[in-house]
Amino acid sequence: QIINWVNRFFQQEASLKGKHVLITAGPTIEPLDPVRYFSNYSSGKMGYAMAQAAYELGAKVTLISGPVSLDPPLGVQTVQVKSAQEMYEAVMQNLVHADIVVKTAAVADYRPETIAKQKIKKESDSLTIQMVKNQDIAWEIGKQKREDQILIGFAAETDHLADHAKEKLARKGLDYIVANDVTVAGAGFSTDTNIVTLYGRDGEEWTLPKLTKIEVARRLLTYIAENNKMRKR
Amino acid sequence: QIINWVNRFFQQEASLKGKHVLITAGPTIEPLDPVRYFSNYSSGKMGYAMAQAAYELGAKVTLISGPVSLDPPLGVQTVQVKSAQEMYEAVMQNLVHADIVVKTAAVADYRPETIAKQKIKKESDSLTIQMVKNQDIAWEIGKQKREDQILIGFAAETDHLADHAKEKLARKGLDYIVANDVTVAGAGFSTDTNIVTLYGRDGEEWTLPKLTKIEVARRLLTYIAENNKMRKR
Repeated sequence: QIINWVNRFFQQEASLKGKHVLITAGPTIEPLDPVRYFSNYSSGKMGYAMAQAAYELGAKVTLISGPVSLDPPLGVQTVQVKSAQEMYEAVMQNLVHADIVVKTAAVADYRPETIAKQKIKKESDSLTIQMVKNQDIAWEIGKQKREDQILIGFAAETDHLADHAKEKLARKGLDYIVANDVTVAGAGFSTDTNIVTLYGRDGEEWTLPKLTKIEVARRLLTYIAENNKMRKR
Repeated sequence: QIINWVNRFFQQEASLKGKHVLITAGPTIEPLDPVRYFSNYSSGKMGYAMAQAAYELGAKVTLISGPVSLDPPLGVQTVQVKSAQEMYEAVMQNLVHADIVVKTAAVADYRPETIAKQKIKKESDSLTIQMVKNQDIAWEIGKQKREDQILIGFAAETDHLADHAKEKLARKGLDYIVANDVTVAGAGFSTDTNIVTLYGRDGEEWTLPKLTKIEVARRLLTYIAENNKMRKR
């Protein structure tokens, strides 16, 4: 963590200096009753790495995090949330100040339609759970964002990586999407490494080798900062 | 952790010396697809405390644990599992050697009927999940256990604590059940304290004050060890 600060201090070119970066990370938890919930395997590591890298590169960083077992990076303002609804509200409160929004969180697409007030008793042999769609946070940001804001999404896929990622990029109004195949060794959940491909709105495509998540984060943010200096904003 | 060993070494009366204690802990995870799952808020703290206390009291301890973010207690043989099915198999493999079985795990009562091989795409506005019942591990143990084995269950309830606990004690063939109301401050999930009531098969009932989970564990195991010296086995 100290290295983090030293890096930032001696940064030759703090490419995100003066920028505000808003990052979401981790899974969300969607309760079914007071003891049971739905979630996903997101560990938050990629998002926390993005937050640390953005801070090192000179940015003011706000991290909105679902429940994970990671320590918040030093120097980063962290907001803890649980459900997709809570994450949505925290993002919307912070959106106006953000120059770059990085959406690494694996927000639950669906939540149980009703949340039981008491623990559901297991009387019957089967249980049918009716799920309804959560708000699509990336899509909402894409709709609301100003021309000067850069929106970066993440796509953890198990099949048809490029197709799914490019479709998501377009549908959600993203500027970039970072895609990884979670079924590949070294690119899955909870690992400390990742293997990603960056797809840009303008058609660019950049595949990185297997790297630690912090190194992936540094390279992605440096690339995006450099490219957007030149882009008319 | 070192204190743990020292305690054991200097134990004036190692009340579980020569006994084999089998403990289950934590939640189970029931996958819906490669990224999504069902689970519950069990932190594993009570189960890990029971394992540490049993070890301090001189027992040989096997801990079968669902996914938690705790370090396995020193000196305890720990088996990591994910789903209810895996936990069932691990328990059944170890059951024959156990003198005392402590079932603190919050095993999922239901699992999705089918597990999708690919990540489910969120095309529709709603999703119906058909859940089927998992095997009831405590009930299976209760059915199979020998007269000389003591079976201790846990009941985390949100309402009608005594009724639910006593019903469970009888239905599952338990010797004891330890009940706590997870809605009470200091007795919930992830806390380091607990407020429990012990109900015995013979009608005894013992409510402890709010204590740390390790202290709850020490008192429960000491009580049970002492009482079962006298009980004809």
